[in-house]
Amino acid sequence: MNRDPQVQLLLTGNEIMSGDTVDSNSAMIAQRLADIGLSVYRKVTVGDDQALLCRELANIAATADTLIINGGLGPTIDDLTAAVLAEVAGVALVEHPLALAHLEAWCAQRGMPLDAANRKQAQLPAGAQIIDNSIGSAVGFELQLGQCRVICTPGVPSELKLMLDPIVASLAASLARPAQRHILRLQTFGLGESNAQQLINDAIPNWPAAVELGFRAGAPQMEIKLAVADASELALRDHCEGKLRELFGDHIIGEGDTLLAAKVLELLTAKGQTLTTAESCTGGLIASQLTRIPGSSAAFHAGFVTYANDIKSTVLGVKAATLAEHGAVSEQVVREMALGALERANADYAIAVSGVAGPEGGTADKPVGTVWLAWGSAEALHTRCLLWPVERTLFQTMLAAAGLDMLRRQLLGLDSDPRYFSQRRSR
Amino acid sequence: MNRDPQVQLLLTGNEIMSGDTVDSNSAMIAQRLADIGLSVYRKVTVGDDQALLCRELANIAATADTLIINGGLGPTIDDLTAAVLAEVAGVALVEHPLALAHLEAWCAQRGMPLDAANRKQAQLPAGAQIIDNSIGSAVGFELQLGQCRVICTPGVPSELKLMLDPIVASLAASLARPAQRHILRLQTFGLGESNAQQLINDAIPNWPAAVELGFRAGAPQMEIKLAVADASELALRDHCEGKLRELFGDHIIGEGDTLLAAKVLELLTAKGQTLTTAESCTGGLIASQLTRIPGSSAAFHAGFVTYANDIKSTVLGVKAATLAEHGAVSEQVVREMALGALERANADYAIAVSGVAGPEGGTADKPVGTVWLAWGSAEALHTRCLLWPVERTLFQTMLAAAGLDMLRRQLLGLDSDPRYFSQRRSR
Repeated sequence: MNRDPQVQLLLTGNEIMSGDTVDSNSAMIAQRLADIGLSVYRKVTVGDDQALLCRELANIAATADTLIINGGLGPTIDDLTAAVLAEVAGVALVEHPLALAHLEAWCAQRGMPLDAANRKQAQLPAGAQIIDNSIGSAVGFELQLGQCRVICTPGVPSELKLMLDPIVASLAASLARPAQRHILRLQTFGLGESNAQQLINDAIPNWPAAVELGFRAGAPQMEIKLAVADASELALRDHCEGKLRELFGDHIIGEGDTLLAAKVLELLTAKGQTLTTAESCTGGLIASQLTRIPGSSAAFHAGFVTYANDIKSTVLGVKAATLAEHGAVSEQVVREMALGALERANADYAIAVSGVAGPEGGTADKPVGTVWLAWGSAEALHTRCLLWPVERTLFQTMLAAAGLDMLRRQLLGLDSDPRYFSQRRSR
Repeated sequence: MNRDPQVQLLLTGNEIMSGDTVDSNSAMIAQRLADIGLSVYRKVTVGDDQALLCRELANIAATADTLIINGGLGPTIDDLTAAVLAEVAGVALVEHPLALAHLEAWCAQRGMPLDAANRKQAQLPAGAQIIDNSIGSAVGFELQLGQCRVICTPGVPSELKLMLDPIVASLAASLARPAQRHILRLQTFGLGESNAQQLINDAIPNWPAAVELGFRAGAPQMEIKLAVADASELALRDHCEGKLRELFGDHIIGEGDTLLAAKVLELLTAKGQTLTTAESCTGGLIASQLTRIPGSSAAFHAGFVTYANDIKSTVLGVKAATLAEHGAVSEQVVREMALGALERANADYAIAVSGVAGPEGGTADKPVGTVWLAWGSAEALHTRCLLWPVERTLFQTMLAAAGLDMLRRQLLGLDSDPRYFSQRRSR
């Protein structure tokens, strides 16, 4: 079995060095390479500096099998890629007839004259083969540099996206074997990264080296990725997946890119049931996350943001006496908020949240981070108090997710408490 | 004047190599360095591979004056930065007492035990100085490696953002020259980047070279940055600012980091008035953006997410006949939504939105992207139909912003239409 080619990326552009532009092109390239089982070994990013570009190109070409250069193909004076490749290869820049024909056609289609700046884009290193650009003026091109195949691509994302089709097809055809990496992603909520790692260390001390394990901690979800290089290792990956499912159980929301809100909507839609929300401290975030999902209207018809106390009464029917006796952040109030929302939305399930998001508003009894959650149906309504003392927007993000997660658990008939119940216990 | 230090970045993380995560951290670092007049010379990105990380670190440290490493500080086995720096420096990994104290406090605040995985984050190269992480578990740290100052920062963007404050201050203090660049940021809504650039080119053909002009296009706002290197050029910057204000006028929301929601809340709070929301296609996003702002409870008491037609009637009092005759996406319906919300929330102002977010639900008459907005008070309620046919979540983001922007304009007494009214005209 031949080894996979080592692929490196060289990105150029003052705008990506200055931070004015966030580079999403290299992620696009990496994802497309992953589709054919290739990974990017190393990526170097520099500004539009000819000497530095020449040095980096020569260094990478000395060790990599494939180098994809992105950016610097355009008509302006800071577009240097063709000149840099010609210099390192020790060949002249020559006008490429196919590149010139492309430019002529491109200009003609737009009723523009072919000016000198544009014509510069036909000046390519002698011996280069062009790669068609179906929408932009600058063709891509490639040149063999010793052992390294150097492929030059445009920085405009829409042009790059289309040009990656023939590039990826050509790389796939050159592979010694079909090298599909087999990746499984599990989405979790309620596990910290360190928590998850510790649990795995304890439960599976001899994690098999063939199964790559990765974590991506986002707020609120954490993704666990399991990858193997060869189909012969799939049974081993499945074994590891089984172990993880034993360990993390119902903290696993789903596979792929599953979001909590999407999972809850999927469960409700399958049952033909609906959900409403009654939000104080999360301020509409749960409703907003639900309605981001296409098709959410099947299971979500109404949500209430009752931020002020009197609104909890006038809009949701929370009794003034309940508010006076227990305060807005209380079990009784979230319960009445949920019941009021259920009735007004004529919904099957509700999530209600009332808490102290901060930075102001905490008391000795109810410090910043204190929150009451209610979830469920009128017949089976559950409540819980948690203490989640983090920065305001993170608090809102985590509590919106916790509310969705508790309803997910109820809809699935899970009866064990999630880990964050004990970790975030308020008293 | 001594030369500026040469700064390089080393980014680590399998998730950024695989394309699962787009790296925005290096742009954040570059922007913050630009504030003190420093630029990033070169950036190398590799996966979580100890040998490769050691090689890159040693190579960079041999030539750069400052190296900022981002990522790999966490508790999991693929977090290698401390081990790599120790190996290259030829020092041991030791438990740092301040890092340990930070971890203990961090866990205690969350009612969690300090487990071995978390405790790993206190293992730092001997001699390293820690950099406080005010929200996360992993402290940053730095170590001098020959001529190169190596600064290690966390990959979690919110943690990095806060940690850059002391790092940038310390780098500024070490510069041989006054580090202060004089930067003015203007936040705008409703201007495209190319649009803004073209307007400036046309109106100010001889833009002074001493005033650096930058754009950062986000959704929904665009930031325009004006910077000069020396206080003697401040008058010139002010002159340019005046020109920009003439050009863009009321598309400028404010200075610094001003968000539309914060600006609207500020205007209302100053008047002692309140706002309510009646959202269909934006699904709670406007309410959520308002309640992210600390202190929003002063001016925002209640919001309504009326996603289904019958809910528009039962919750907000939209007449069934209005819905039947005009459809949910109509001037009459957003008007009745706004009036119903104003009454039920007892608020001074309302924003109401009803549109076709897609991908399903469009018709020949009302294609995906069609939206009716209403904003104002019961006495002065305005409406507008726009066509904004973009991907669902971007549509929601832009329309939530447009609603807030229209109310901002009303509160400021502006009577000219924003540019997007003509650009996004529905018919």
